[in-house]
Amino acid sequence: MSDIDALLFANEAFYRAFADRDDEAMLDLWSKTSQISCIHPGWGPLLDRDEVMQSWLAIIRNPDSPKVRCHEPEVRLYGATATVLCFEEILGNFLIATNIFVREGRLWKMVHHQAGPTSMKPQIESERPPGLVN
Amino acid sequence: MSDIDALLFANEAFYRAFADRDDEAMLDLWSKTSQISCIHPGWGPLLDRDEVMQSWLAIIRNPDSPKVRCHEPEVRLYGATATVLCFEEILGNFLIATNIFVREGRLWKMVHHQAGPTSMKPQIESERPPGLVN
Repeated sequence: MSDIDALLFANEAFYRAFADRDDEAMLDLWSKTSQISCIHPGWGPLLDRDEVMQSWLAIIRNPDSPKVRCHEPEVRLYGATATVLCFEEILGNFLIATNIFVREGRLWKMVHHQAGPTSMKPQIESERPPGLVN
Repeated sequence: MSDIDALLFANEAFYRAFADRDDEAMLDLWSKTSQISCIHPGWGPLLDRDEVMQSWLAIIRNPDSPKVRCHEPEVRLYGATATVLCFEEILGNFLIATNIFVREGRLWKMVHHQAGPTSMKPQIESERPPGLVN
């Protein structure tokens, strides 16, 4: 698998864990050896591992949390670090995100996520139908 | 100079170029050898070098663009890549940003910037008075 494919896979695993409310998968996909951080839409920075993980567990364990889908992921590789920029679709609205991954052996693990509002939309007519994430 | 100090310096140089409307400095501080990208508040992703640079030149050459100040920069080092998370103060309001840098020789060059709204504020009472960026 190429680095680009592996990063698209890691990014998709993040949105799948989010959409499936899979707390084990969410815990597993973040790096456990590098520092992690997160900026949820409208929030301040979460700079501590426990804060980041607790925020995600609170979100995915909340039955009222809306579903999310990723559109138009764009990978940029910087050696053993990479970014995936993408749109996030939530209840028909769109956010835009920067996801950062680091290489750990054969895997890419998430170290940072920022999402915020955008007035742009992805070209979703060319995307897979909802529910098919594979 | 430590990596942390060098990254704080590179991050400050970005906000100084922005505040001083210094187009040469702004052009210089972005990497010319790595892919660059940018997500301005509310915008879609800019994924092309010319788009990114033209957006910044349009902003800093516009006399109506507001001044910006950086608060509470937080550096995270991932080998030859690093993030600096910080608040941005613009006309008394605050944004929150992810800035990504890559090491090029002895310098750290910017490869990505995302800024978006935040409901949080930095602890600015401990900051330097406005105008003193050095």
